[in-house]
Amino acid sequence: DSPVVYTMEEFEKRLSIVKPGDSIILANGEWNNTELLFKAYGTADKPIKLVAETMGKVIFTGSSNLRIAGEFLEVRGLVFKNGFTETGEVISFRENGENLAYNSRVTQCVIDNFSNPERQEPDNWVVLYGKNNRVDHSHFANKKNKGVTLVVRLNSEESQENNHQIDHNYFGKRQTLGSNGGESMRIGTSHYSLTSSNSVVSHNYFDHCSGELEIVSNKSGSNTYKNNVFDECQGTLTMRHGNGTLVENNVFLGNNKPSTGGIRVINGDQTVRHNYMSGLKGYRFRGALVVMNGIYNAPINRYGQVVNANITKNLLIDSDHVQLGAGSDEERTAPPVDSKMTHNIFYNTKVDSLFTVWDDISGITFKNNIISPNVIPIVETGLVSQKIEFAKNDRGWLIPTTDELDINFKYGVPTKEETGVSWYPKSSKENAFKVGKTHQVSNALNSLYDAAMASETGDIIELVDEGPYELSKKIPVNHALTFTSNLSEKPLITYQQTALFEINNGGSLELNNLKISGAETSDNSGNAVISTSKYSMNNNYKLFIENCDFMDLDINHSFDVLRVAKNTFADSVSITNSRFEKVTGHIMAMDKETDDAGIYNGEYIIIKNNIFKDVEGSIATLYRGGNDESTFGPFLEMNNNVLNHVGYGKRNKSNGSISLHGVQVQDIHSNLWIQSASIATHLVVGDPIVNITNNNFYQTPTPVITGDQRFVLKNNTSIDPQLN
Amino acid sequence: DSPVVYTMEEFEKRLSIVKPGDSIILANGEWNNTELLFKAYGTADKPIKLVAETMGKVIFTGSSNLRIAGEFLEVRGLVFKNGFTETGEVISFRENGENLAYNSRVTQCVIDNFSNPERQEPDNWVVLYGKNNRVDHSHFANKKNKGVTLVVRLNSEESQENNHQIDHNYFGKRQTLGSNGGESMRIGTSHYSLTSSNSVVSHNYFDHCSGELEIVSNKSGSNTYKNNVFDECQGTLTMRHGNGTLVENNVFLGNNKPSTGGIRVINGDQTVRHNYMSGLKGYRFRGALVVMNGIYNAPINRYGQVVNANITKNLLIDSDHVQLGAGSDEERTAPPVDSKMTHNIFYNTKVDSLFTVWDDISGITFKNNIISPNVIPIVETGLVSQKIEFAKNDRGWLIPTTDELDINFKYGVPTKEETGVSWYPKSSKENAFKVGKTHQVSNALNSLYDAAMASETGDIIELVDEGPYELSKKIPVNHALTFTSNLSEKPLITYQQTALFEINNGGSLELNNLKISGAETSDNSGNAVISTSKYSMNNNYKLFIENCDFMDLDINHSFDVLRVAKNTFADSVSITNSRFEKVTGHIMAMDKETDDAGIYNGEYIIIKNNIFKDVEGSIATLYRGGNDESTFGPFLEMNNNVLNHVGYGKRNKSNGSISLHGVQVQDIHSNLWIQSASIATHLVVGDPIVNITNNNFYQTPTPVITGDQRFVLKNNTSIDPQLN
Ligand SMILES: [Ca+2]
Ligand SMILES: [Ca+2]
Repeated sequence: DSPVVYTMEEFEKRLSIVKPGDSIILANGEWNNTELLFKAYGTADKPIKLVAETMGKVIFTGSSNLRIAGEFLEVRGLVFKNGFTETGEVISFRENGENLAYNSRVTQCVIDNFSNPERQEPDNWVVLYGKNNRVDHSHFANKKNKGVTLVVRLNSEESQENNHQIDHNYFGKRQTLGSNGGESMRIGTSHYSLTSSNSVVSHNYFDHCSGELEIVSNKSGSNTYKNNVFDECQGTLTMRHGNGTLVENNVFLGNNKPSTGGIRVINGDQTVRHNYMSGLKGYRFRGALVVMNGIYNAPINRYGQVVNANITKNLLIDSDHVQLGAGSDEERTAPPVDSKMTHNIFYNTKVDSLFTVWDDISGITFKNNIISPNVIPIVETGLVSQKIEFAKNDRGWLIPTTDELDINFKYGVPTKEETGVSWYPKSSKENAFKVGKTHQVSNALNSLYDAAMASETGDIIELVDEGPYELSKKIPVNHALTFTSNLSEKPLITYQQTALFEINNGGSLELNNLKISGAETSDNSGNAVISTSKYSMNNNYKLFIENCDFMDLDINHSFDVLRVAKNTFADSVSITNSRFEKVTGHIMAMDKETDDAGIYNGEYIIIKNNIFKDVEGSIATLYRGGNDESTFGPFLEMNNNVLNHVGYGKRNKSNGSISLHGVQVQDIHSNLWIQSASIATHLVVGDPIVNITNNNFYQTPTPVITGDQRFVLKNNTSIDPQLN
Repeated sequence: DSPVVYTMEEFEKRLSIVKPGDSIILANGEWNNTELLFKAYGTADKPIKLVAETMGKVIFTGSSNLRIAGEFLEVRGLVFKNGFTETGEVISFRENGENLAYNSRVTQCVIDNFSNPERQEPDNWVVLYGKNNRVDHSHFANKKNKGVTLVVRLNSEESQENNHQIDHNYFGKRQTLGSNGGESMRIGTSHYSLTSSNSVVSHNYFDHCSGELEIVSNKSGSNTYKNNVFDECQGTLTMRHGNGTLVENNVFLGNNKPSTGGIRVINGDQTVRHNYMSGLKGYRFRGALVVMNGIYNAPINRYGQVVNANITKNLLIDSDHVQLGAGSDEERTAPPVDSKMTHNIFYNTKVDSLFTVWDDISGITFKNNIISPNVIPIVETGLVSQKIEFAKNDRGWLIPTTDELDINFKYGVPTKEETGVSWYPKSSKENAFKVGKTHQVSNALNSLYDAAMASETGDIIELVDEGPYELSKKIPVNHALTFTSNLSEKPLITYQQTALFEINNGGSLELNNLKISGAETSDNSGNAVISTSKYSMNNNYKLFIENCDFMDLDINHSFDVLRVAKNTFADSVSITNSRFEKVTGHIMAMDKETDDAGIYNGEYIIIKNNIFKDVEGSIATLYRGGNDESTFGPFLEMNNNVLNHVGYGKRNKSNGSISLHGVQVQDIHSNLWIQSASIATHLVVGDPIVNITNNNFYQTPTPVITGDQRFVLKNNTSIDPQLN
C-alpha cells in the first residue's frame, strides 16, 4: 500500500497495518471536518510517523482535531486553520482516559486562529498527557477564545513526572481575552500542584502573548523554563502553584509598552536566575518581578507562601516595577521567608520608586544587588547604588559595557525566525484604520451602506455632501472602517433602523466630523447609534469617535450611543471632542457580562473634551463583576468633559452619571458636572487605582464610592460655572 | 421589449418605459437579495402591473424587499421566503417620506417566515402609506421576530383618511413572541390616534395568531373590522386608541384552548355588534369581551375612557370571561360611561361567574341580554336568565335552534380556503416529538452525538446500554429530539464539554429515563447540562425532562441544569419525576432579559414531583422586568416537589430557593422545603395570580413577597417531615 492517503478511509486502512518505522503521509489539500485518531505503537529506533505530503500543504479546516495515542509516534507538518474543534482539544496526546501517548512528538505543526467563534467557550489547543512527549518547532498563533494554547495535564499517574519537552515553538499573538482563561501555556492544575511534572520549556518565542495576567501558568512541581523570549507580552511567567521551578536565561522585552510584565514568584523553592528584563512597564501583579504574599497553610488552590526563593543574577533595565509581598490582604498574610535576592541589577534612571513593598520583607536576604543611583533602596544593605554604562548588543538589547560585573550577559535565546516553522508567516495583519482607499460618497438613500459593503479593511468613507444621508439599513462594519468628512459644516446622517452602525466580528469603527441624528429611527426601545453584533465576537474591536455631534437620541426609551452585546470585547473605545444632546439611554453601555466571572466588555475607555447634555442614562456603564484577578481592566480615562443634566432618567438603574463596577483604573479629572447625578463607583478586586481630582460638581452630589475604600478624591469643587 | 424580465437591470429598463396599462412580468425563479422599487404612474382604467410569470413561482429570498410608489399600481403573485429584509419593511407602500403609493394593490402575495433571525430586531412585513390602497387575498404566516405583520401608517397627511382595504388575507400562525411587538395587524399609532384612518378590514382569516395580547391593535379613528375569523388566537382585537371603530360580524373561535380571547374595548364611540364568540378561555385582558377602565383626560398614549360604547347582539357561547372596568388601578380610574350592552347572549353552563366587575359599571346600560340560567347576573335588570338550545351549523359552530331571538346567526365570514392564495399551503409543519424514527444507540464515545447528527425531526434516540455514554462534543439539538431508554436501570451519560445538549434554533428536546453526571465536564465556571444556542433563536422551543437523575453538577461554580441565552424563548419547560443532587448553579436559569422591556425567556414552566438536594442556586430563576402589559407569562406550576438544602450558595444573588420577578401566574402548592432558602418573588404588572398553598416550609423561612401585595398565601406549615 502507498504511504500517501487521500481520505479518512485510506488513513484508517493504512493505520491498521503500519509497523514500526512506517509512515503515513497525508495528501496535500484541505482536510475538512476531519477528526483523526493516530493510535499506533512504534519503537525508540523505529517510530511511526504521520507526516504532511508537503510541509504546510495539509490543512485541517472546519470541525477537525487530532488525537495521538500509543508510543514512539511523530506528527509533522500539519496546519489547522479556518475552523475550530467541537471537542475540548485540537491536538491531544491521548485517545481517552485510558489510552495516552508516550515518547511521542509533534513537530513543525501550525495552529492559527483555530478559535471557537464563541469567545467564552473554552478549549485547549495542544494538550500533553502521558510521558516523555515533545512539542517543538511548532507555530501557535491567534487563539481568540477562552482556554489555554498549550497545556500539560497531570490528571493521572501516567501523566506525572512526565519529562515532556516543549521547545523552539513560536507562540504568536494572543489578544487580550478580558477574563481568566487566556494563558498561552499551563503546566498542571492546582489539584495536582504538589506533584512533579518535570517538564522543560525552552527556546520558545512568546510574541505579544497578552491573553491575561498569566502568560505561562506553572501549576506543578519541578519544571524548567529556560532560554525563552517574551516579546511585548502583557502578563507574566507565573509560578501559580507547585514548587521547585527553575526559571533561567529567559529574555523579557517590554519595549516600554504598557502592562508588559516579567516573572511572578509564588510557593516554595523557586529559582529565578540570569533572566534579562528590559522596558517592562507593567505594575502590580504584572510587574517586571513580583514576589507574592501567600497564605499560611494555604489550601491547594490558593496562594502558597514564598519559601526559599533564590532570585539571582537577573538584569532589569528600564523596567518600572518590582513588587515585594504583593497581594498582601486579609487572606494573603504570609510574607516571603528564607529567600534571597542576590547579584541582581535593577537599573532604571527614570523611576526612583522602582520597588514597592507590600508587607514585611525581612524574610528576603538582599546581597550584592546593584541599583541605579536614583533608585530608592528599600533595605539598608544589599542594594548598592552604582552607575553602569549600557550599550546595545547584536540583538539590540541594552547590556552593560563593563566586564566587571558578576553576570554573564549572553542568554542563548532564539530569534523569532529560529522558532516555529519557516514556511508559515509569523506576522499577522493588523486591522488598522486608514491604510486603505478613500471612497468619496454622495448623498443618496443607503449610499453609505453601499460604500461600506464595497469597502475593504482600512478604507476611508468620505462624506462629500452636507446631507442628510439617509439609511433604511444598518451599516455593517466588517473590518476597520473610517467615516469622515472634510466639510466645515458636519454632514448629517439619519437612519431608520434600530442602529446606524453594527460592528461585526473583525470590524472596527472610526467616526470623524459627522453629525448623527436619531430622529428617524424605528419607534423601538433600546435603539442605538452603534451596536456590536449580537453574536459573540472573538476579535477585539476598536471604536474611535472624534469631533462628532449626536442629537435626538430620544425616539423611545433606552436609546444608547454604543450598545454592546455579551461576549464582545473592545480593545479601546475613545470618545473625544464630541457633543451629545437628548439621549434617553447611556452613551456607552458596556455592562453585559453579569455572570460575575471577572469578564467585562472593554479594556481602555477614553472620554475627553466632550459635552453631554440631557442624557437620561450614564455616560458610561462599565461592569466587571466577581473577584477574579486574571485581568487588569477596564482602564478609564475621563477628563475635561462637561456633563450637563446627565443621569437622571428613571430607567438609569445605576443612578449615576457614570456608573463603574469593578473598574480597575479610574482617572477622572478636570470635568465639569452641572445638575447631574453623581459618579457611582463600586471598587473591588486587587488594588483598583482611583483618582477623582480637580472636578467641579456643581449642583451635583459628590461621588458615591462603595466597596473597597482606597481612592484619591481631592481638589474637587462645587462652583457655579456661570455658563448662562 | 418583452414584458418578462429576468434581471434587476431588465426590470429597471422596463420600468423606465412602462405606460399605463402595461405589465412587468417577473421571470419565474429565485430572486435572491433583490430590492425592488416599483415606482410608476398608472391610471384608474389602466393600472400598471408587476406580476409573477407564474403565480407562486417567483420567489424573493435573502435580503429582499419591495417598495411601491406612484399610483394605480398592482403587484400580484410574489412570494417572500428564506430570508428577511435589512430594511424595516418587506412590502412598503412608499419609496420614502415624500413618494407614497395611492390607489394601488398588492394581491395574491405570500410572505412566509421571512423573519429576521434576531428575534428582538423589529421589522414590519407589509406597511401601507398613502390612500386608497388594497391588500387582499394574500398569505402572511410565521412571523417570528418582533414587529407587526401588517401596519397602516398615518404619519403624514397624505396617509390619513386613507380608505385602505385589507380583505381576504390569510394571517397564518404567529407564535408567542414573549414581548410587545407581536401584533398581526396595527392601524395607526398613539401619536395619530385622534385622526381618522377609515380603513376597512374584512373577510380575513386569523389562524393561531398568538404573538401577544393584541392580535389586532387599532390605534386610529373610524376603522371597520368585519366578517373576519379569529381561529384559536391567544389575544384580542383591541381598540387600543382611536374612536368610532365598528367591529361587526366577526367570528372568534377558541375551541376551549387556554388564553384565547375576543374583543377589548377602550376609548369613545366604539360599536361591537353581531360578533360570534365561542369557546374563548382567556381571562383578564384576554377575556372574550373586555371593557376597560380608562384615564380621565388621558394623554394621547394612555388609556382613553370608554364613552358611548354600543355592544349589541353579540353571541358568547362557552366563553369564560367578560371583564368590565378591567384594568382599574391607581391610574385607570375612569369607568365606562354612556354605554350600552343590549341584546347580547352570554351562554356558558359551566362558568357561573362569567362576569368580573372591576369598577363602577353604572355607566353601562344593560338591556335585553340573555344569560344561561347558571350565570350570576351582575346587574338587577338587563341580564335575563333563559335556557336556549344550541345545535351545530354547517361550519360546526353552536347556534341557537330557536328563531325567536332577536339576532341573525349568519355571519358571512370566509372559510380558511377562501382567504389567501390557493397555490400555497396553509398548514405549517409542527416540530413535534416522537413522530419520527427510533435509533437504537450503543455505548461508544460520541455515539449520541453521531445519532443526533444523523437524526431528523421527531426522531427518538434510544440508549440500549447501561453506559457510561461519553461525549467529548456537545450534542446539537437542531429539531425535535427525544433521548430515552427502556432499561430498568437508567443509563449514565457523562460529557467533557461545557454542556451536554445545545438546543439550536428550531430544536426541542425531550429526556426520559436517563442519568446524567457532570463529573467529567470542563473545569469551567458556568457549565450546564442543557444550554440554548448563544445566538438568537426566533423559533420557540420546548424542553421536557421526565424521570431523569442529575448528579455531580459541581465541577466549578455556577453549574446550571438549563442555561438559556438572551433572545431565546421557551414555549414550555417541564421537569417532572426527576432527581437533582449537588448542583452549584440553578436548575433553570431563565433570567437573561434584563432590559426591563417586558421581555422574558419562557411561557409555561412546570416543575412537579421532583427531588432537589444540595442545590446552591435556585430551582428556577424567572425574570420579566418592566411594566409592559402586552404579554401574560411566565406561567409557573410547581407542586409536589422536595427541596432539600436549596438556594444557599453565596453566588445565588436572589437568595431564594426559587426566584421570581414579574412572573404573572404562580401556582405553588404541596411542596416540601427542608433547610432551604425561602421563596423570593417580586410581583409587578397587571394582576399577577399568586397562590402559594399547602406547602411545608420546614426549617425554611416563609416566602419573601415584594412589590404588589396581592397574593394567596395559606395552609402552609412548618412541620418536621421526619425523613431520617
Ligand atoms: Ca489564569
Ligand atoms: Ca402591543
